[in-house]
Amino acid sequence: MQVVILCGGSGTRLWPISRTLYPKQFVKLFENESLYQKTIKRNLSFAKSFSVVINQEQYFMGLDQLDELKAPKSQFILEPVGRNTAPAIAMAAFASKPDDILLIVPSDHLIENQSAYEDAVKKAQELASQDKLVTFGIKPNYAETGYGYIEANGLEVKSFKEKPDAATAEKYVKAGNYFWNSGMFCFKAKVFLEELKAYAPDVYEQSHKTFTHARVDQSAIRLVKEDMVAIRSESIDYAVMEKSKKVNVVPADIGWSDLGSFDSLYETLPKDENGNTLSKNTIHLGSKNNLVISDDRLISTIDVEDLMIVDTRDAIVIAKKGSTQKVKDLVAEVKKHNVEMTNVHTTAHRPWGTYTILEENPGYKVKQITVRPGAKLSLQYHHHRSEHWIVVSGVATVTIDDKTFDLKQNESCYIPKEATHRLYNQQKVDLVLIEAQVGTYLGEDDIVRLQDDYKRN
Amino acid sequence: MQVVILCGGSGTRLWPISRTLYPKQFVKLFENESLYQKTIKRNLSFAKSFSVVINQEQYFMGLDQLDELKAPKSQFILEPVGRNTAPAIAMAAFASKPDDILLIVPSDHLIENQSAYEDAVKKAQELASQDKLVTFGIKPNYAETGYGYIEANGLEVKSFKEKPDAATAEKYVKAGNYFWNSGMFCFKAKVFLEELKAYAPDVYEQSHKTFTHARVDQSAIRLVKEDMVAIRSESIDYAVMEKSKKVNVVPADIGWSDLGSFDSLYETLPKDENGNTLSKNTIHLGSKNNLVISDDRLISTIDVEDLMIVDTRDAIVIAKKGSTQKVKDLVAEVKKHNVEMTNVHTTAHRPWGTYTILEENPGYKVKQITVRPGAKLSLQYHHHRSEHWIVVSGVATVTIDDKTFDLKQNESCYIPKEATHRLYNQQKVDLVLIEAQVGTYLGEDDIVRLQDDYKRN
Repeated sequence: MQVVILCGGSGTRLWPISRTLYPKQFVKLFENESLYQKTIKRNLSFAKSFSVVINQEQYFMGLDQLDELKAPKSQFILEPVGRNTAPAIAMAAFASKPDDILLIVPSDHLIENQSAYEDAVKKAQELASQDKLVTFGIKPNYAETGYGYIEANGLEVKSFKEKPDAATAEKYVKAGNYFWNSGMFCFKAKVFLEELKAYAPDVYEQSHKTFTHARVDQSAIRLVKEDMVAIRSESIDYAVMEKSKKVNVVPADIGWSDLGSFDSLYETLPKDENGNTLSKNTIHLGSKNNLVISDDRLISTIDVEDLMIVDTRDAIVIAKKGSTQKVKDLVAEVKKHNVEMTNVHTTAHRPWGTYTILEENPGYKVKQITVRPGAKLSLQYHHHRSEHWIVVSGVATVTIDDKTFDLKQNESCYIPKEATHRLYNQQKVDLVLIEAQVGTYLGEDDIVRLQDDYKRN
Repeated sequence: MQVVILCGGSGTRLWPISRTLYPKQFVKLFENESLYQKTIKRNLSFAKSFSVVINQEQYFMGLDQLDELKAPKSQFILEPVGRNTAPAIAMAAFASKPDDILLIVPSDHLIENQSAYEDAVKKAQELASQDKLVTFGIKPNYAETGYGYIEANGLEVKSFKEKPDAATAEKYVKAGNYFWNSGMFCFKAKVFLEELKAYAPDVYEQSHKTFTHARVDQSAIRLVKEDMVAIRSESIDYAVMEKSKKVNVVPADIGWSDLGSFDSLYETLPKDENGNTLSKNTIHLGSKNNLVISDDRLISTIDVEDLMIVDTRDAIVIAKKGSTQKVKDLVAEVKKHNVEMTNVHTTAHRPWGTYTILEENPGYKVKQITVRPGAKLSLQYHHHRSEHWIVVSGVATVTIDDKTFDLKQNESCYIPKEATHRLYNQQKVDLVLIEAQVGTYLGEDDIVRLQDDYKRN
């Protein structure tokens, strides 16, 4: 079976730990594992291979986290813009053989009962081999009003229901034949594409055109922006599942959570005897039932209860338990003042490693830069800033204009404005350096890339 | 009148904004003014001059904040260790003429009714001129159990009362002739010293010995540690006021607060229409009646009420309103793990300016250093670390071994381990530089001072 992992999450519901360019699925929430990595591990036993449909900005993060798991080599399909799930799945289907059975899974859900999950997948696979479009219906354990429901009659789907009000949700849960629409699917590539062509022909056509125009290399299928933006944005539910006559539902009681809010995250994390989540750098005095997510700062609480305290280097949110659906309103508010804070952390991930902004002031900026073994930044120059590099760990191979030299621990160099330069870690250990930028304009977009290993130029 | 300002606060009750080396009275809590500065301004109109009794570590902070106000030149008495109020006041009395009237005021209280304060001081001065020891009794506006009370009979003091229980405090407030013991006093220098000699002769003798051994220079009276530690630690209340027959009390209804907790700070700060304190970098959604003190991080709240949220660069405290007396327990807990965090901020004040630790890791540390115009660091060297300096603003005059040169904006230099070096700002504007330290040991105590303008060697 071909496992298709959808990485399209937007990163606003768990802000500030998730950001647009570092969405929920890549945050290492669980014992240093991300939901994306958990998704891969969950499917390792029966996946012939993986297709990862991912925003091109997150490609290297997806690749890195896959490498950490020593998972089998996977196919990456890079979206320049998101167009919802129908086009994303179509791309994976176009990239497969017509009779391949695809298991479509979001990358940002948690499933706690592995054996029940495997049983459900087995059932779905069987139905898919009979040319069914299978959706997984999660047995609801409370009357959630934030999800769509599937009304089932045995394996048949009677209807899809929009997010209900509280009373209706109550009725659904009591009835026993209503299930949460989980966003997981299983079908043959050709069956999905036939049904997409039948019920959403425009989406099919433009997706097909986009796929055939893609630039394909050894590592990835790169969709072209001009094509992709012309696809109508549509979910698989609206485009196909709610219309097709071939839909089956497999009920699944698998310990599923979409971690759609800090409230649901609180439920899944381990807690101490006072109901506070376990977290380093935390002191609680008389406090109970709090979610605390801390970075490197010390967080102390005194006599507080039922709070969600989420700390990052540049932003902290303190919310009442039960109110965390409002985080999206908060993000909208933050965007008005500081778009960057909703997009990136002070630590940003790059194909070659990471950088952290230590200090930013008019006229200068200080970064800590970590370059992975073997990684090379682009050959570049800046119009408005000069840079100082001080190696604090490892060895840097530095090119400045026509000179290349090694810079060892405790050595420094200066890169004048307009000088062409490159940073390369040829060693077997991380290179860490402190960069002080001085200039009148210090935006990340003041960069001219002359050559780049990661095709960003 | 000679106004004596006592700066002995310990800095734990408003942790983490106050720290042992940056106590409450120096924190700029009010429109960029500290309580210490407010204390000076409050007394400007009738002070002949100021005596500031201060821990020697805080001398330059006290001097700087005085300079900012363009207050008259003052006498500083530097304590190497604290010995409570009786010895501190004795030092100020020894430094005065016998008939000088001293007004003794703590540096960390808030007084909101200036004209009532001036009236009370006038009355006290009159009584002091008649050889009375005057204490100021604050008219209680609620049954506080955390203060001592004075039972008055007209101007006479009938008795001093320890901190009462709630019922007793209630009785005191109803009775009308009980007042909070404010820690403010007024008397002739010689009257105080006579009474101290009579009722606490050991404190008097050792204080006198300490004073006569002090090293006096143009700027300050520097008490010697060996003498000072031999003084018995004692408050003026126990040593003199509770025993002397010359005590009078001046009732004062002056809008007094000792800001002994975040709860009392909340009461005094300006608030928005939802009862949240006004604070930069804050977004409230549906939240009410919260104290928020923020540094440079964005603090957001959702639907929370009655919280005290106090954020600094390395620590944040979230406490329930009414529970902030427990901050001292919290500080004791923090001390077990990280003493430094209770002593200093990541931004530390030095006689020559400030430094902020931007990043600290095994093997290296990054600081931003600001040197004031005309200021000069000590001539020094380090055994275990080398340093890189990058000037990002201003001009540094740098000495390394036998060379001295100017380092301009966007220039850098390297100071090898063991090299004697010095940093000097000869200009009219702040010098800002980024320092990267590399070494196996990076503690602040790896410093050998060969020459120092501030007599720290």
